[in-house]
Amino acid sequence: MVRTSVGSMISMPTIAYQGEPGAFSEQAAQSFFGPSARLLPLESFKDVFQHAAKHPANFGIVPIENSVYGSVHQNYDLLLRHKLFIVGEVKLRIQLHVMALRGVSLKAIRFIYSHPQALGQCEEFLRSLKGASVVAYYDTAGSAKMIQEEGRRDAAALASARAAQAYGLRILRRNVESNHHNYTRFIVLSRRATVPTRHAKMSLVFAVKDIPGALFKALAVFALREINLLKIESRPLVGRPWEYLFYLDIEGTQSDERVRQALDHLGELATFVRILGCYPAGKTIRS
Amino acid sequence: MVRTSVGSMISMPTIAYQGEPGAFSEQAAQSFFGPSARLLPLESFKDVFQHAAKHPANFGIVPIENSVYGSVHQNYDLLLRHKLFIVGEVKLRIQLHVMALRGVSLKAIRFIYSHPQALGQCEEFLRSLKGASVVAYYDTAGSAKMIQEEGRRDAAALASARAAQAYGLRILRRNVESNHHNYTRFIVLSRRATVPTRHAKMSLVFAVKDIPGALFKALAVFALREINLLKIESRPLVGRPWEYLFYLDIEGTQSDERVRQALDHLGELATFVRILGCYPAGKTIRS
Repeated sequence: MVRTSVGSMISMPTIAYQGEPGAFSEQAAQSFFGPSARLLPLESFKDVFQHAAKHPANFGIVPIENSVYGSVHQNYDLLLRHKLFIVGEVKLRIQLHVMALRGVSLKAIRFIYSHPQALGQCEEFLRSLKGASVVAYYDTAGSAKMIQEEGRRDAAALASARAAQAYGLRILRRNVESNHHNYTRFIVLSRRATVPTRHAKMSLVFAVKDIPGALFKALAVFALREINLLKIESRPLVGRPWEYLFYLDIEGTQSDERVRQALDHLGELATFVRILGCYPAGKTIRS
Repeated sequence: MVRTSVGSMISMPTIAYQGEPGAFSEQAAQSFFGPSARLLPLESFKDVFQHAAKHPANFGIVPIENSVYGSVHQNYDLLLRHKLFIVGEVKLRIQLHVMALRGVSLKAIRFIYSHPQALGQCEEFLRSLKGASVVAYYDTAGSAKMIQEEGRRDAAALASARAAQAYGLRILRRNVESNHHNYTRFIVLSRRATVPTRHAKMSLVFAVKDIPGALFKALAVFALREINLLKIESRPLVGRPWEYLFYLDIEGTQSDERVRQALDHLGELATFVRILGCYPAGKTIRS
């Protein structure tokens, strides 16, 4: 089972992620913190946020955006509910493989287990399979773990190469995801904000009244100061039908005078502004 | 089984949707086209686009945006690959219920079937269930249909109230979705563009070079003409790391002189522009 409390490890810096060892989030965490990092698998995104919020030495890592499925609004919502900062990012190419116990062939498979989103990403392959039931499991790596622990010779998992290795499974078919341009961006969370000085980006969220030109004026505070925009996304504010939230990623850091002035200026125009964090732009890695 | 070809119905106007009768898409189609509309359930979104593209009298309806999961990028991609226009929209409140055969209680349930995304939306409820396996199925309504057809007294489906009615199942637990602010926006597709005159919105996609202020200038063509923005989303262009696609919904129609001028102006600045359609703004309905 996945641990849900930190127990005696509370004084050690640990990095929480959602899922089992072998999960994509674990790989993102390890590529960011290095191989000796102390990682903590938890059951839900909410648990990851709570772990990171509990102690200033704790970290969390969660997916925030996928190239096929779009933004993970659930994690944007959790960001707004916790006093945490984004202190880093990792972009991971998502590759999904079919794996089973050694000696088991694809023909013998009656059940295919994986996380609902991974199953959705392999819809075309799954539809081409005859005679196998598709079973949703709480985690990609967790399904590989279950097959190994229960010695299931009638089942396969859809998971990462890392999960196959972690649980001693053999890969029967590689890269069964429908879209090979499948990337997930993960963000690293901490109670302590960082202020990087070079190659940095900043994530923020703000709201403006729904009047013509309101967003344009808000973006002007950056454009007039030649601050580059990296991402923008609007989202209706739940329960306030005429107001919108905007998620923005910009190039620059709070140590930059122009950025500070732009944010002051934005404060004059917006009904709400929150800096989600300032962090070095991450490289893309392969899973 | 879901039909995948139109056969003899080719000369009749039919509205294709993904899923089985009782699916949320079917409900969106019926609320848009009225109760006497001729609806065609198909297996995939791709099939729906192909049906709509095949004959000028055909229509398709697909989800494009969910309030919890964000934009359905897959359908934006299919829009770019087909010569189709958005001619309407429907916003549907998504409510998911647990349903089973009459006389079956929640305690007797060993398997819960639904579409992977619906399972994801009910994660908290599913985790609270003891002793039931969660099984991914190709469709929410399809899982209700299977339970009825196979007389499964050990299984329940997560689907709409409409699916319970269609397949004679009894609802055991209402509204088990984790987030009750769960809305999906569906778009109606046709080979023939419409030009509504009042309360209209327009969807478009464009690309600009990744240079500071490029998006700001692009948005200026609307702001300077007091054209309201309803949605904006950026998306990195796959395979072209320094270029971005922007999806925009604006208020107005091509019959409006200001809008035509703004689009001409946008053409001067963007590397690519495509009008996805012009259509009346849709009301929100409850499922």
